[in-house]
Amino acid sequence: VSCVAALCGGVGGAKLALGLSRALQPEELTLIVNTGDDFEHLGLSISPDIDTVLYTLSGLADRERGWGRDDETWNFMTALGALGGETWFQLGDRDLATHVERSRRLAAGETLSSVTALLAARLGIGARIAPMSDDRVRTIVHTPDGPLSFQHYFVRERCAPRAVSISFDGADTARMSAAFAETLERRDLAAVIICPSNPYLSIDPILAVPGVRAALARIRAPRIAVSPIIGGEAVKGPTAKLMRELGVAVTSASIAAHYRGLIDVLVIEDTDASDAATVTRQGVACATAPTLMRTDEDKLALARTLLDLARTFRRDAA
Amino acid sequence: VSCVAALCGGVGGAKLALGLSRALQPEELTLIVNTGDDFEHLGLSISPDIDTVLYTLSGLADRERGWGRDDETWNFMTALGALGGETWFQLGDRDLATHVERSRRLAAGETLSSVTALLAARLGIGARIAPMSDDRVRTIVHTPDGPLSFQHYFVRERCAPRAVSISFDGADTARMSAAFAETLERRDLAAVIICPSNPYLSIDPILAVPGVRAALARIRAPRIAVSPIIGGEAVKGPTAKLMRELGVAVTSASIAAHYRGLIDVLVIEDTDASDAATVTRQGVACATAPTLMRTDEDKLALARTLLDLARTFRRDAA
Repeated sequence: VSCVAALCGGVGGAKLALGLSRALQPEELTLIVNTGDDFEHLGLSISPDIDTVLYTLSGLADRERGWGRDDETWNFMTALGALGGETWFQLGDRDLATHVERSRRLAAGETLSSVTALLAARLGIGARIAPMSDDRVRTIVHTPDGPLSFQHYFVRERCAPRAVSISFDGADTARMSAAFAETLERRDLAAVIICPSNPYLSIDPILAVPGVRAALARIRAPRIAVSPIIGGEAVKGPTAKLMRELGVAVTSASIAAHYRGLIDVLVIEDTDASDAATVTRQGVACATAPTLMRTDEDKLALARTLLDLARTFRRDAA
Repeated sequence: VSCVAALCGGVGGAKLALGLSRALQPEELTLIVNTGDDFEHLGLSISPDIDTVLYTLSGLADRERGWGRDDETWNFMTALGALGGETWFQLGDRDLATHVERSRRLAAGETLSSVTALLAARLGIGARIAPMSDDRVRTIVHTPDGPLSFQHYFVRERCAPRAVSISFDGADTARMSAAFAETLERRDLAAVIICPSNPYLSIDPILAVPGVRAALARIRAPRIAVSPIIGGEAVKGPTAKLMRELGVAVTSASIAAHYRGLIDVLVIEDTDASDAATVTRQGVACATAPTLMRTDEDKLALARTLLDLARTFRRDAA
């Protein structure tokens, strides 16, 4: 038994997380999840990326909508609207149970790590799911009209405002969660995988936690990222728009440059094989694979490809 | 335009409150609601009696179940159970919106009076609905096995434990809500009505707020209570069981004795007319009327009877 750590954000990351959870034994996988998207809303502590991972791995996720739970109802939200409450952030009736139970436990003094582990266990998930930190980190998107908290940017404003820069409030003093720190120190660590989540909004908050970059730099196991860019566009979400606004070419080479020094290999889409040279020019090895994950078979296949790559990759030969 | 104040608890009180709201102009009615049943649960501030009055007057109450909202779904509760959360206190998906919105506003520093007024307005209710106090009062039922908070006694234990005594934690230092104090001081006050709620569990907490008994004693307008006892039994709930446990005969005479000095007239059920003598022997005038409220017509009829009584009653003649 060895151990694989995967860093991920929401939807895109959770797809690969599901593939990894099926390719590995439960005790072999630790998923480190972005909490920069977390926020307090309606008096509840909401952790959107953790929930997406929890729901995806437990089979409860809604596949069409891309967030929240399957077989969901919206009676709470409708009633809240009638009472004049805020309804820009949709919370399904079943989903709400997660937020209420998490909020209650956090208010009682439990850590986010402990609550996340408990929820994962209750949902029958074997893999370890841990927040990047138990301390409060909040992603802020700076726009020409001022700063927006992440969910205001992402959900309320639907990513419409132009992003000038991104910062991670609280990251300076946050500590890695115990599971995160412990996993990166393990001698049997076989790979660190950076999922094809948004590098700027979902992975950078994780990398902003003090000690993470240094720990990744020390690791001997292969560090493999999957590019979220396919054919010059992002599969989903605001990644491409954001890259353009930040003045970065929407290419896997930009992703390689972004992760330079933290990864050994960038896996890009097969059909983008012609971009391999521009990736390696960033000092990062390049591999190609079908990275578009439409079906659960796609997710498992990509996970297996990454694990094979981790087994065969020799850093010195890169 | 004159003004009527009605003191009430949950279901039984809300029925008469609905009748009064149909018999009077909105600005003529102030409902003072018990908050001794309030509690904090799952991180939410829950005010069961206020909600019963809100839902009843807005037509949203479930009539069969006797609590909560009509056309309700329970997906939150089911999901919470699957996560290992507490499910002994049922919270419907639509009902939950009330608790979340109230909790959010209270946490932001609003008073329960202000939140209640806002919810009433949002639900289209014209009558004024006010908590007895904005301060925390908690009904405690003392049993041979120790004290139980009200909802633990009432809902979780289904009133099964034997009640030895009842106390109202926090009542000593609670202040009457502004609406309550102001209403009892009004010169145009035409009547104070004590609804047929449980005297020990629903009305006594209101009477326990400092100043309430003195204010009621000063009032010149007729003070009229409706007996919750019909034919030696309570219409609903634990009133009769509680009276037996407290060593009180389950009669309207006991209710008259309980309210002695605070009311001028006790209205008892027509079919219990033979009990009138035992009521008047307690120093309280007695009137009879059909007090069992099955239909909305029953509620309106009883309300009109009480208002007629208030108009014609002369305290000196009693």
